Amino acid sequence: MTTDAGAPAPSILMTLDQHHAARASAARLADEFGDRFDAETIERVLHDSFEQLAPSSRLPHFLPLLAERFARQRLQALARVGGETRGGVPAVLFLCVQNAGRSQMALGFLHRYAGDAAIGWSGGSHPAGEVSPVAIEAMAEVGIDLTREFPKPWTDDVVRAADVVVTMGCGDTCPVFPGTRYEDWEIADPDGMSVAEARVVRDEIERRVLHLLGTLGVAIA
Amino acid sequence: MTTDAGAPAPSILMTLDQHHAARASAARLADEFGDRFDAETIERVLHDSFEQLAPSSRLPHFLPLLAERFARQRLQALARVGGETRGGVPAVLFLCVQNAGRSQMALGFLHRYAGDAAIGWSGGSHPAGEVSPVAIEAMAEVGIDLTREFPKPWTDDVVRAADVVVTMGCGDTCPVFPGTRYEDWEIADPDGMSVAEARVVRDEIERRVLHLLGTLGVAIA
Repeated sequence: MTTDAGAPAPSILMTLDQHHAARASAARLADEFGDRFDAETIERVLHDSFEQLAPSSRLPHFLPLLAERFARQRLQALARVGGETRGGVPAVLFLCVQNAGRSQMALGFLHRYAGDAAIGWSGGSHPAGEVSPVAIEAMAEVGIDLTREFPKPWTDDVVRAADVVVTMGCGDTCPVFPGTRYEDWEIADPDGMSVAEARVVRDEIERRVLHLLGTLGVAIA
Repeated sequence: MTTDAGAPAPSILMTLDQHHAARASAARLADEFGDRFDAETIERVLHDSFEQLAPSSRLPHFLPLLAERFARQRLQALARVGGETRGGVPAVLFLCVQNAGRSQMALGFLHRYAGDAAIGWSGGSHPAGEVSPVAIEAMAEVGIDLTREFPKPWTDDVVRAADVVVTMGCGDTCPVFPGTRYEDWEIADPDGMSVAEARVVRDEIERRVLHLLGTLGVAIA
């Protein structure tokens, strides 16, 4: 899905505000990743991230910020595949259909329990426009804030960089690369559920994340 | 703590009913363990179990039944140390002070999530007379029945047979054998807590058991 250096002009038009914001994003990412990637690579990943998020985004004001965060995740993943940080803490990628409920919840629990002792990413095969309100509410009840999260697709670079890929409901559309550990969790989609029903999903995901961290030898906080 | 074959007469007197019940227990245990232990060993473990439980038991009617269950656990452990079942599923021993709350809860969660894929035991450094009512209530809320459980001491045979010993609050009185994996969980004693407070303890124990099963490579149900 990434465009290469000689790709045609952007297929998504940016507003002037978005353009300014994207410049600032590129500068921040260059500060962080400039020792590992050249400016062209960083800009290409940032632009591609913007393009991938734009069609489903319902929040044009936040789009540059979300694209920057998506690009950061992908650059971290690229650095890992390049071997620079592999061998450190394990990286887990949670995938579901919309990246709006299950995979967001799982990532929230991974961050809570593993802290810096694991890297977590999430994505969906058909990203929704926003994180599901019922998922946000169920997670808020246990003190985990998903309001800053956003649905996004998975990208090959992130899948390749993950030590474990956990799939929830994406079925045949989930990516498979040889040599990666996969787990398929049968967990109902909270989309359209009441908060009471979503709590059951939330608790099941929490249990599985805790168990997963154990299998990875990651101590829990 | 075990008496040997030439030990003096029982220091705890049995009632006639208890004596009859003990005969039936010995027969059942001989059926189960007769191919691995001789009748004398089985009777000795059963009698010692009775003696260890009698001082703290508030339910004399149930004492023979509890002694039989305690003896069964110890004979299973002895068989494991003897190498007959080692190498199969992992065995975890949960220890706390009274074997009335934390270690009982942990064992309940181990049984729920591991099923037959792990062996679990529990014990206390100073066994109480009964499982804490607040622990029973908090666990009943999540569908785990502790009403059939009973506080008991740890015994060397069980400690030696465990692959992992989890200690909660027994401090210096907890047993330590070289070569055994130990984990110390800092978890408050629910003794004297309200049910609301005990729920927090329960949930923390659940999280740790799930993580532990992951570290042991035990799939969760």
